[in-house]
Amino acid sequence: MIKTIKDSPLYPMVYPDSIAFFGASNRFTSMGSNQLNSLLDMGFEGKIYPVHPKEKTVQGLVAYKSVLELPEVPDLAVMVLPTHVVPQALEECGQKGVARVIIVTGGFKEAGKNGRVLEKQLVDIARRFGIRLLGPNCIGVANPRHRYNVTFIPFVGRPGFIGMSSQSGSFITQMFDYLSPLGLGFSAGISVGNEADLDIVDGMEYLAACPHTRVIALYIETIRRGKAFIEAAREIVRHKPIVALYVGGSEAGKRAGLSHTGALAGPDGLYNGVFRQSGVIRAASISELFDFCWVLGASHLPHGNRVVVQTHSGGPGAAAADACSRAGLKLPEFSPQTLEKLASYVPHTGSVNNPVDLTFTKNPRDFFDAIPRILLEEPAADMLLVYFMAPQKVIERNMKGMGVPEDQMAGLIDKVFCDQAAGIAQLLQDYQKPIIGFSFHERTNPMLQQLHQQGIPALPSPERAARAMAAMAGYARVRAKMDKH
Amino acid sequence: MIKTIKDSPLYPMVYPDSIAFFGASNRFTSMGSNQLNSLLDMGFEGKIYPVHPKEKTVQGLVAYKSVLELPEVPDLAVMVLPTHVVPQALEECGQKGVARVIIVTGGFKEAGKNGRVLEKQLVDIARRFGIRLLGPNCIGVANPRHRYNVTFIPFVGRPGFIGMSSQSGSFITQMFDYLSPLGLGFSAGISVGNEADLDIVDGMEYLAACPHTRVIALYIETIRRGKAFIEAAREIVRHKPIVALYVGGSEAGKRAGLSHTGALAGPDGLYNGVFRQSGVIRAASISELFDFCWVLGASHLPHGNRVVVQTHSGGPGAAAADACSRAGLKLPEFSPQTLEKLASYVPHTGSVNNPVDLTFTKNPRDFFDAIPRILLEEPAADMLLVYFMAPQKVIERNMKGMGVPEDQMAGLIDKVFCDQAAGIAQLLQDYQKPIIGFSFHERTNPMLQQLHQQGIPALPSPERAARAMAAMAGYARVRAKMDKH
Repeated sequence: MIKTIKDSPLYPMVYPDSIAFFGASNRFTSMGSNQLNSLLDMGFEGKIYPVHPKEKTVQGLVAYKSVLELPEVPDLAVMVLPTHVVPQALEECGQKGVARVIIVTGGFKEAGKNGRVLEKQLVDIARRFGIRLLGPNCIGVANPRHRYNVTFIPFVGRPGFIGMSSQSGSFITQMFDYLSPLGLGFSAGISVGNEADLDIVDGMEYLAACPHTRVIALYIETIRRGKAFIEAAREIVRHKPIVALYVGGSEAGKRAGLSHTGALAGPDGLYNGVFRQSGVIRAASISELFDFCWVLGASHLPHGNRVVVQTHSGGPGAAAADACSRAGLKLPEFSPQTLEKLASYVPHTGSVNNPVDLTFTKNPRDFFDAIPRILLEEPAADMLLVYFMAPQKVIERNMKGMGVPEDQMAGLIDKVFCDQAAGIAQLLQDYQKPIIGFSFHERTNPMLQQLHQQGIPALPSPERAARAMAAMAGYARVRAKMDKH
Repeated sequence: MIKTIKDSPLYPMVYPDSIAFFGASNRFTSMGSNQLNSLLDMGFEGKIYPVHPKEKTVQGLVAYKSVLELPEVPDLAVMVLPTHVVPQALEECGQKGVARVIIVTGGFKEAGKNGRVLEKQLVDIARRFGIRLLGPNCIGVANPRHRYNVTFIPFVGRPGFIGMSSQSGSFITQMFDYLSPLGLGFSAGISVGNEADLDIVDGMEYLAACPHTRVIALYIETIRRGKAFIEAAREIVRHKPIVALYVGGSEAGKRAGLSHTGALAGPDGLYNGVFRQSGVIRAASISELFDFCWVLGASHLPHGNRVVVQTHSGGPGAAAADACSRAGLKLPEFSPQTLEKLASYVPHTGSVNNPVDLTFTKNPRDFFDAIPRILLEEPAADMLLVYFMAPQKVIERNMKGMGVPEDQMAGLIDKVFCDQAAGIAQLLQDYQKPIIGFSFHERTNPMLQQLHQQGIPALPSPERAARAMAAMAGYARVRAKMDKH
């Protein structure tokens, strides 16, 4: 295992200072131009050398006819070229002394017999010159902290704590705008494509050493180095959680993986065994992959699997209770002390059982401070699940009734939500127990935005929240077990 | 079974022309005031008579000290009163001759022994006067076509085709703004609360007869009349699908239901049997309940369970293939004719297998017309699943590069998405096979908005899309089986 990211062969691909760029042109719509543009959009501060057979400048940058003409040996070459010209370009990179090449181009192993021959050729050239390859048939790397993104889609949002090593480029680049409204982002996203050389295990090891990565996400169509994967993962999960989505376990998933990255997938049961053995948490969908990463990165680990549910709506409460049971979580009964403390806050139409159902509360502030405080003090509570419903239209209506001028409303409502979220965030500090929300609102809802910004994950359904809390409890068990050995 | 909605005891509660309103005041924040306000906000065109012991007017309406003083016998009374005064108010409704009463007030059967006694008292009064009750402990009814909504939350969006009969009021009223960005809405939402009299079966029968309801959604904590439920459902599913979420099957769900609506839930297996026997499709979560309703209401029924997946991104394609397999759907291989037709559209980096993966297409329009057309013509395809990714930022970047003025961009992009959605919607007409999308964007994304408006459901993950398509195939099987008998 590497000690720091600088020991990883991926380091110059994630933190390059100079890049030779093959395949961008002045035609805006081409894939290569778009990928160069993503880099320029981010305000990359290193040097970029477009390589183009005809153009003098590309997107305003001085272009070079061949990599051999570059004024320096760049840290990295990125290739978005037609398939048949890649070997020659790689050969020239070798001659120039370029030690790292990202090959975005497809049409290799995933495309059948001829492609396999071509890919073998790339590997031979790379070996001859000591080049390390990422890809082919990958989308590149994003490291927003380094203002560096060579993928197809412009980066949005902020750098975050999720490190991803993925056999799908889309699940990195198309997730930028999925993660952003959740207040999430990538620490680094590494698309490994066909894994002709560097693979998902290398990505995982890099992210384990990355100080900005709190949790590692994997998208897997096949694991080509099983033993290395298990050994590395077992080591990593002692200090950092790993969450994996594996899609090759069904016949259709296996066939799709073969067409996509030339992956030879194995049966689901085998992969379940690999994940269990190595302490990796398996997600059942891409949404779940990021749900799990979110709660694991945002929260303290729980001491057990006992959940208290707080709601003001009976249906969402009952649905949450049922979802928790199905996810293998327990809803403990309260101690007499907790029941006594709750009594004065819960109206006779509500319930002091677990779920605590406040129905219509007199003082909405209690929902965000006094009541969750009582629940977090309950010794049988390992985690708190809170139903959030932002009655924006109701607040607006009431403000209007009270004569609040139209133009002041939005600001006042934002302040209400901000204070409420701050109340909950304070509890996270005070009790060091996970607090997870669920809500049916759009992720862009102002109350949820406040919660996300203050580090409280609010998931879009009780089922997803329950599954995510079960993942936290599961990882806590893995840690406890590993610590014993 | 009733023949028309006018035969239902619920009719005057869903289409009232005059309402006595108990429990609203001039204090804006009270629950009753909010519920009256929801009615006023909708522009209800019938008569509203607030009943208040002290106020002369309530929210600008002439108020009456007692229901006995009203100038006419209203179709309906709505009560949002303190628990202990409900019996007296109900007694007076009986004296006045009011035949329908919605009791929103809680604190009855769900609150323990005393509450059970009080609820029995309500039933006795109602019987004596021949009053039919909805509730207690419900949130009321919403019928947006009648400009009528007596629930706590102001209605947003438009009337739609989902009819809901629910033991949770929140899952009606708090879903207004969940459904709206999907282009969905309720035909009618009926919250049945503790079911002291009218129950979820009555709601289901009403919705079966409702001409605006294409699909019936049920939220269930218990079924109090099992035999009636099965008999009615078996009859209804011959012409209209029913989707049910049952949350009482786990120990925690059962306990929560008891606190919420005094529900005595039964084991999961028993309810699975009831649903299977009656042809009701069971949803595993509230999101799934509405997913299933969406696709069932929006689409033709498929002839089988064979799905073709169309994508331009390998990872989402492989995840979709795997999700379809897990949901019990088949991904058929293509006929030679289809393969031949596809060949010229799919680049050598893509795949003509199922999933069809276009990778980087030269003409984006093909994705929305020529290619899905070929796939829908494939005899082995019962349904089409399409991955939608709106590369808004990429389009903006390219437009900027081509010199399109900033202020024209949004309009041009909207037009692109509108045309693309129209292309897909045309195929729905031409081939009468279900076309379901999936996408990781916010539901408010302009491309998804266009798809939703044109009747193409785009679900937020491949897993949810696959489960929804499996529900469609399942309902098609129910229909085929019922038609034989």
